[in-house]
Amino acid sequence: MNVHAVVYTPDGVERYDELDAAVSAPGETWIHASAADPTAMNALSDRFGIHQLAVEDVLNEGTRPKTEEYETHTFVLMKTTQLSQRDEIEFHKEVQTSSVGFFIGEDWLVTMSTGVDAVIDPTAAEWDRNASRFADRGTDFLAYRIMDGIVDDYFDLLDEIEDDIEAVEEQVLEEPDPQILEVLNDVRRDLLAFRKTAWPAREAIAYLSRGDIPQVADANEKYFRDVYDHLVQVVDLIETYRDLTSGSRDIYLNTVSQSTNDVMKTLTVVATIFIPLTFVVGVYGMNFADSPFAMPELYWTYGYPAVMIGMAILAGMLLVHFRRQNWI
Amino acid sequence: MNVHAVVYTPDGVERYDELDAAVSAPGETWIHASAADPTAMNALSDRFGIHQLAVEDVLNEGTRPKTEEYETHTFVLMKTTQLSQRDEIEFHKEVQTSSVGFFIGEDWLVTMSTGVDAVIDPTAAEWDRNASRFADRGTDFLAYRIMDGIVDDYFDLLDEIEDDIEAVEEQVLEEPDPQILEVLNDVRRDLLAFRKTAWPAREAIAYLSRGDIPQVADANEKYFRDVYDHLVQVVDLIETYRDLTSGSRDIYLNTVSQSTNDVMKTLTVVATIFIPLTFVVGVYGMNFADSPFAMPELYWTYGYPAVMIGMAILAGMLLVHFRRQNWI
Amino acid sequence: MNVHAVVYTPDGVERYDELDAAVSAPGETWIHASAADPTAMNALSDRFGIHQLAVEDVLNEGTRPKTEEYETHTFVLMKTTQLSQRDEIEFHKEVQTSSVGFFIGEDWLVTMSTGVDAVIDPTAAEWDRNASRFADRGTDFLAYRIMDGIVDDYFDLLDEIEDDIEAVEEQVLEEPDPQILEVLNDVRRDLLAFRKTAWPAREAIAYLSRGDIPQVADANEKYFRDVYDHLVQVVDLIETYRDLTSGSRDIYLNTVSQSTNDVMKTLTVVATIFIPLTFVVGVYGMNFADSPFAMPELYWTYGYPAVMIGMAILAGMLLVHFRRQNWI
Amino acid sequence: MNVHAVVYTPDGVERYDELDAAVSAPGETWIHASAADPTAMNALSDRFGIHQLAVEDVLNEGTRPKTEEYETHTFVLMKTTQLSQRDEIEFHKEVQTSSVGFFIGEDWLVTMSTGVDAVIDPTAAEWDRNASRFADRGTDFLAYRIMDGIVDDYFDLLDEIEDDIEAVEEQVLEEPDPQILEVLNDVRRDLLAFRKTAWPAREAIAYLSRGDIPQVADANEKYFRDVYDHLVQVVDLIETYRDLTSGSRDIYLNTVSQSTNDVMKTLTVVATIFIPLTFVVGVYGMNFADSPFAMPELYWTYGYPAVMIGMAILAGMLLVHFRRQNWI
Amino acid sequence: MNVHAVVYTPDGVERYDELDAAVSAPGETWIHASAADPTAMNALSDRFGIHQLAVEDVLNEGTRPKTEEYETHTFVLMKTTQLSQRDEIEFHKEVQTSSVGFFIGEDWLVTMSTGVDAVIDPTAAEWDRNASRFADRGTDFLAYRIMDGIVDDYFDLLDEIEDDIEAVEEQVLEEPDPQILEVLNDVRRDLLAFRKTAWPAREAIAYLSRGDIPQVADANEKYFRDVYDHLVQVVDLIETYRDLTSGSRDIYLNTVSQSTNDVMKTLTVVATIFIPLTFVVGVYGMNFADSPFAMPELYWTYGYPAVMIGMAILAGMLLVHFRRQNWI
Repeated sequence: MNVHAVVYTPDGVERYDELDAAVSAPGETWIHASAADPTAMNALSDRFGIHQLAVEDVLNEGTRPKTEEYETHTFVLMKTTQLSQRDEIEFHKEVQTSSVGFFIGEDWLVTMSTGVDAVIDPTAAEWDRNASRFADRGTDFLAYRIMDGIVDDYFDLLDEIEDDIEAVEEQVLEEPDPQILEVLNDVRRDLLAFRKTAWPAREAIAYLSRGDIPQVADANEKYFRDVYDHLVQVVDLIETYRDLTSGSRDIYLNTVSQSTNDVMKTLTVVATIFIPLTFVVGVYGMNFADSPFAMPELYWTYGYPAVMIGMAILAGMLLVHFRRQNWI
Repeated sequence: MNVHAVVYTPDGVERYDELDAAVSAPGETWIHASAADPTAMNALSDRFGIHQLAVEDVLNEGTRPKTEEYETHTFVLMKTTQLSQRDEIEFHKEVQTSSVGFFIGEDWLVTMSTGVDAVIDPTAAEWDRNASRFADRGTDFLAYRIMDGIVDDYFDLLDEIEDDIEAVEEQVLEEPDPQILEVLNDVRRDLLAFRKTAWPAREAIAYLSRGDIPQVADANEKYFRDVYDHLVQVVDLIETYRDLTSGSRDIYLNTVSQSTNDVMKTLTVVATIFIPLTFVVGVYGMNFADSPFAMPELYWTYGYPAVMIGMAILAGMLLVHFRRQNWI
Repeated sequence: MNVHAVVYTPDGVERYDELDAAVSAPGETWIHASAADPTAMNALSDRFGIHQLAVEDVLNEGTRPKTEEYETHTFVLMKTTQLSQRDEIEFHKEVQTSSVGFFIGEDWLVTMSTGVDAVIDPTAAEWDRNASRFADRGTDFLAYRIMDGIVDDYFDLLDEIEDDIEAVEEQVLEEPDPQILEVLNDVRRDLLAFRKTAWPAREAIAYLSRGDIPQVADANEKYFRDVYDHLVQVVDLIETYRDLTSGSRDIYLNTVSQSTNDVMKTLTVVATIFIPLTFVVGVYGMNFADSPFAMPELYWTYGYPAVMIGMAILAGMLLVHFRRQNWI
Repeated sequence: MNVHAVVYTPDGVERYDELDAAVSAPGETWIHASAADPTAMNALSDRFGIHQLAVEDVLNEGTRPKTEEYETHTFVLMKTTQLSQRDEIEFHKEVQTSSVGFFIGEDWLVTMSTGVDAVIDPTAAEWDRNASRFADRGTDFLAYRIMDGIVDDYFDLLDEIEDDIEAVEEQVLEEPDPQILEVLNDVRRDLLAFRKTAWPAREAIAYLSRGDIPQVADANEKYFRDVYDHLVQVVDLIETYRDLTSGSRDIYLNTVSQSTNDVMKTLTVVATIFIPLTFVVGVYGMNFADSPFAMPELYWTYGYPAVMIGMAILAGMLLVHFRRQNWI
Repeated sequence: MNVHAVVYTPDGVERYDELDAAVSAPGETWIHASAADPTAMNALSDRFGIHQLAVEDVLNEGTRPKTEEYETHTFVLMKTTQLSQRDEIEFHKEVQTSSVGFFIGEDWLVTMSTGVDAVIDPTAAEWDRNASRFADRGTDFLAYRIMDGIVDDYFDLLDEIEDDIEAVEEQVLEEPDPQILEVLNDVRRDLLAFRKTAWPAREAIAYLSRGDIPQVADANEKYFRDVYDHLVQVVDLIETYRDLTSGSRDIYLNTVSQSTNDVMKTLTVVATIFIPLTFVVGVYGMNFADSPFAMPELYWTYGYPAVMIGMAILAGMLLVHFRRQNWI
């Protein structure tokens, strides 16, 4: 069987291959199993009276973080998150989660994870080093250390999202591009997905910090309250970031309106000056027969310069007008 | 009479045609009736003391899911949903619901449905196979199995809606079309209609999982909590999908602004280059009499090439200007 | 005096002209008075200890529906609503309300209405027919029947509003018109006005169904819960309809943008093709003196067809370009 | 000292210059002081044990309405409001508030106001006339009368704001003008400012009507509930008015889009008809030498009418096309 | 060691260098330490049993204001805020916060600050002057004085933000500029950041004013309620300011639409008048051979004036039309 149990005692760390031996040994027992191994899962379920529905909650990717009390233990479901490239296109990222289930008993802790164990390893190493010192604090403190690590990773993910938002904000100001709206939509989608994890996690941890759970020692409640505070901050940051994406979108959409406005001004200035002038030169291109009433200026010595100067004055006046309108 | 009762005992399944016999027989009695059959409805109402208002709630399409306690039983109204073509136009879909009423007594369960029984059949088959094993769990567990099936179907419906949203998102990026807004409006309408079902269903199931209902055994409460968790997820997904449709709408609306912008740029570039040039050639088309002040270049050998080159230089300068403005 | 009292007993209906006689007679006494008659109002106030503030609440059009407990009776204020033409302009409708006050005593019910009694009459007729059967149910059941009738009328009003919304939706797609925004604004205003009635009515009825009111028999609470359910649906529909008007507004506003876009495309295609061509023909209209460098093609035999064909090729290329851009 | 006390007894009104005498006299004592008079304020504070923080709350314009219980009395802070011209520009109005503090003791009432006493005077006159009749009702009833007057004035202010909104709505439809957005912004600012007063006032009065305050007699609670109802209506109206300003803003913004659309249609129709025609006449203005391939129609007898008719047909076809597009 | 303790007694102020001596001395002990000094922090933690997590909360910039009860004291975390230039660009400001931790014991107060002590100093000076008078009020009153100073500074910051908003509002009306959206986004970002501080601060102070904390004397609760009222106002103002920035953004965005509209009107008026006229003069520039059907007016004596007058009339009619449309 693939399950290895670690028992922390004031005297140090002991490892067992037998679940029963590990649990009956004095000290705090921690068993971690990958949820991908059904034999291990069954053995743990049987030994610790873990309900099948709880195991399914860990395995099912869609379940939201939660805390549930059972007769002999408390079940906490947390989610680790990471931002991964969705496809080759830059910026198209996706929040991916994997579940970590905690079953906190009187003097034992069972953890099950569906993803990589990177989030578990630092705590395991820390406890191996400090077994004698930490053994007294109970498995609820051990669970706290792992949860704290998970929530700390949330801040890393938020930092990544913030970097994306800042990249977008810069691009909006420097080089606006219709693709920006897609990127902003993607970031909003990430924030929504992340909120779906962080918000119930906040509730799940709040449950642990309220003093209602027998497996959480009074002295350790303040640690869970600390994790709760972090999650409140996480949820707050998510809202703030959503608001920032709205701001960027407004700025971008205005860039388009502004650009249309600038383009129209250019067209209007050029057309308004030259269309009347073209009419004037058209007039002098008409083939009216010579008559005292038909454009006598065509035959004057200074007729042409006079017309040209007249047109220049007209154009100048229009330019002054546009200048005053702030269009050029 | 059209009512058939099934009694599950540890010894197997028994079927009765008499309501009284079925209820007095030891074991868990399940009676399912189509709400379209008034005789059956009356017989059931009379036998089980089901209130006329509850039956009307099942029959009335507009009633929202709910849980109500009566003296001898608990009444739960759930809705099955499906997405059906509204008319021949692609995408025009509509959420259609039909009601399933549960009357959970001490050792009996009456279900009434207004729609097809597809959602009931798998559970019936499952219990026929496992009668001896399931009989102990009570009719509340039977009700849970059916409700769980109904809520599982909600996820199928959400998947269908998600497919529609993804189709729209793709179309927005590839081939924007004013009809997209109508489709998005339709999807939002579906989500609104679905939320009208899912949101009260969540409350109705929450009621069952809180331990206040005598007909729900303590050991079975966790199952209802599981259904509740699923419904929380459903409501969450509905909100997320609504947010995604807003994103798509923004992108589409911007496509229109952007297109207007591109169209204007083309017009402006062409007009700004050729309107002044047309003025210039108009000048040389004027019929001024020969005079030293009237366009002597008309009579120069290289007059024409000089004018043409001058215009080409002007056009080139404008093109460089537009290039710098990023308009071409 | 204008007050007529009806007493329902298991033996039938009796009518009294004297309040005291009516109340002291065995059976359930119902007195209805038009609030427009101050003598009747005073007599009722005095006889039943109805507080002046309550009567004023009925008379004052602005008061919201509510439930208030008094020492000897419970006061419920409900509103009947109807949609009436505001002025001659089609679509300009307005939600008009009139008040109905219920004073529910132990074995008496006083109702006062400020509007027409159409909403009271069917219940009066129903009770006249069924006096012997209904007499046992108490005046709270009588009040329920009238309130149920009022709330049923809310659905008729909502149907009317829905018809208006559907008419607008159709018009948006078929024949968009700036007036649509005004109509949508009107519909939203109606929904706001209606919500102002329905939302407190929901609270007022919820109060009656909670079992706190001595004048409401336990057996009758479920009826008020039913009315409450209907009002929850009403409020829900109002929100859904508001959301639909937003959707229609988005579609309409986009129609305008889209139309501007189409108009601009037409202009751009025509102008981009003909402005350069006009320049070309302008060139050949210039009066340059004959010179080997000045438009020798003017003197070629095939000069004209060559120029025309050249321009046709240019126009054709532009048309292909615009086709590819999807502008024509 | 500037403080004058009025004592209402069943025998009539008595006025005292001495606070102690007034309080020890049988009957209900009312003392009103302008908060601008520090001597009076100090005397009152000392005599009635009014806390310095409460006095500061009355003096400080920024404090929100509230109810606070002290050992010997209850302190209620209300605000009178009025809409005053902000500067010479029409529509630029501002909500101005001044505070009225109520200190309700067992048989005394101290009121302090920072503004004009117009809101106090009618109540004072009413009580002078009815002293014998009102004396029994207690100073809490007196406080209610004044508060009721203050809240009645809120409706006047809302009517003024409604008039402004209606004026804007009319202007939007008849003579849209960019200044409208500023006016709407102003109205929204007024509504925001007013909500800042009305919302906490609602809470403050709710506190008085809940039966927790010893200085408010049970029999008088219903009066405060009535004021509370009025304030609920006020807050409701504020929300409705905010929604109406949004509607007006949408209509105005669409007017601008619509106008741009109309302008573009005019331009497009004229340009699309005449630009091709100008090209045609430009063709016949080219100076090609006489050749059988160069515009022989120039030399036909009916060449000119044929060309003109051809152009008229082209223009007519375009007009029909635009008519069908609904552009003209 | 760097910690200096001040003890306030009815006899005056005493200063101690020894923590133990200071605490055992009769009177109220106040110790303030800069959080940047780890030795001091450790000494305080040890002496007063301050939990390491609380100290970390003070040091960690990201922690939100909060109140936490410990066995021997209550920990309150507050934040001082200031608006500082983010970079050289005008308007780019940022809300910066620094933490102040309060540890309120029975007769001692420990404060730790991470920023400058400007917010502490006035209270220190006030107490030095009034030691004998204030000593009775307890260290909770001392904590209140400092918190009150912190919250008063919030209003200064809000005034600064209001000034920025007013500057933007003026600029929007006088000299609209695309940069305005960035400034508005900045202001919204500041308000969001500030809300993140003010909102939990409100909760933290509410906790102190509810009478649950043994270290807060009943007589002093009203002071904390006063601070709470101020914080409610702060949060309210933040919402109001956010709403105002939305208003400014709408006005700005409309300025752009309006400007595009004005530009288009100019273009349309000029083009619509001169494009047809240019066509007319083009007609008379065609080289049709002399024929009775080919422009005989070219040879009339008054042909030219007639054509010119005709064009003037056409132009005049168009001008009248545009005038009526309100385009010029």
